[in-house]
Amino acid sequence: MGRTLTYPKRSSNTVNRYKHRATYDLGAIHTIINASPVLHVSFNPGPDDPFPTIIPMIGQMGSFEYPSASINEPLECYLHGYVSSRIMNLARASDGEGLPICVATSQVDGLILSLTPNSHSYNYRSAVLHGYANLVTDEQEKLWAMELITNSVLEGRWDNSLKVQDGSGKIRDGGVSDERKDTEDANVTGRIWTGVVPVWQTFGTPIPSGEGKLAEVPQHITSYIETKNKQNRALAENAVVVQLPPEEQH
Amino acid sequence: MGRTLTYPKRSSNTVNRYKHRATYDLGAIHTIINASPVLHVSFNPGPDDPFPTIIPMIGQMGSFEYPSASINEPLECYLHGYVSSRIMNLARASDGEGLPICVATSQVDGLILSLTPNSHSYNYRSAVLHGYANLVTDEQEKLWAMELITNSVLEGRWDNSLKVQDGSGKIRDGGVSDERKDTEDANVTGRIWTGVVPVWQTFGTPIPSGEGKLAEVPQHITSYIETKNKQNRALAENAVVVQLPPEEQH
Repeated sequence: MGRTLTYPKRSSNTVNRYKHRATYDLGAIHTIINASPVLHVSFNPGPDDPFPTIIPMIGQMGSFEYPSASINEPLECYLHGYVSSRIMNLARASDGEGLPICVATSQVDGLILSLTPNSHSYNYRSAVLHGYANLVTDEQEKLWAMELITNSVLEGRWDNSLKVQDGSGKIRDGGVSDERKDTEDANVTGRIWTGVVPVWQTFGTPIPSGEGKLAEVPQHITSYIETKNKQNRALAENAVVVQLPPEEQH
Repeated sequence: MGRTLTYPKRSSNTVNRYKHRATYDLGAIHTIINASPVLHVSFNPGPDDPFPTIIPMIGQMGSFEYPSASINEPLECYLHGYVSSRIMNLARASDGEGLPICVATSQVDGLILSLTPNSHSYNYRSAVLHGYANLVTDEQEKLWAMELITNSVLEGRWDNSLKVQDGSGKIRDGGVSDERKDTEDANVTGRIWTGVVPVWQTFGTPIPSGEGKLAEVPQHITSYIETKNKQNRALAENAVVVQLPPEEQH
């Protein structure tokens, strides 16, 4: 299966809670980032402001230097923003390595309904990257990044690139896990339904604007919708490992 | 319609891009927060770490002091986390007002497919809060907050409360907006389909765990799923104002 590249574990990205759900694999983390319609990007606006802030941005992982690099290899995170926005001005003005930022995303895959409130949970996939943001100034790299992000659906004007220092992901899948004291209490198990409600993002029927004159929705759009809906549903449903009743477990 | 309360516009929360999409109304911002299955919370881990970080958390707006307060009134943001997690330790150790944090969320409601890449967009709802986080120590307030968050589906152990200093929301709705040079170019309009693909979160068929002994999924779960699916779909579809062809516009 070849080697698996992982991000270094630093204090900033090390997952301490539910460590068994953590991943530092480049492929897993990059896949979660690239599947996100929106990324949340955090930065510190300046010395006079006590609060870090977060803005929603569109972005994709990629390598301009090695465009054929696979999702498992070291990649940069390209973020799309307006040329005179605050984060861009801060990145432009930053000395040294660039503007320290954090990129995060989370996707809920299911509601875990268990016997007690304390054991309720979500199935989810989340990822975090830390790194230094710099403006993309090379014209060729800009065009390349625009196309990369356009292909993931975009509102487009400008690009910012993140040299990733570290990253981590966290994935929860599977079914319900209740405590034995509850699962062995017939009073509780006879009264409360437990299981998982899968959750996924659905793309609906396209609503035409009247500006374009094509009578029919073209096939590249209808098949994108069909494929994504199937994939999203399968992902949410497959995240649930259907548990056998205890007497059938070995 | 009575008065509308708004958050103060400070440099940290003032929306500068597409200002017409911004909102500072408490009701609009709190509604976006409360509809989010996950919130992204940013904080600075410490003086030795250059990067702000982001963690996904569950939370709800509410007022323990005035439990009957409406969504349009000043509320606190209750966040749910593990008692010994890093953000909780930082909030516990913070002097003065509390730990400065930022809470953000974004929901995509539709893909705006226009004539040119530059006019592509999303329909979306996003919200940001800035404030000082403090631990909830009062037992009664803890129980009250647990119930508040439980009712929005939770993984539960502990609570953190945010005294909100400011907030802002940003909402994009409507249809496609292309530039006139493109809409008047029959070569372009005859070739490219334009419109909106609505996007919403779907809850699927519940998958039982085998632990609970109830044969049927109870009605409170099935009707929650049915209601949410209808609401989410209507929200995404209603965000699109179906545009009349230009010759029918006045």
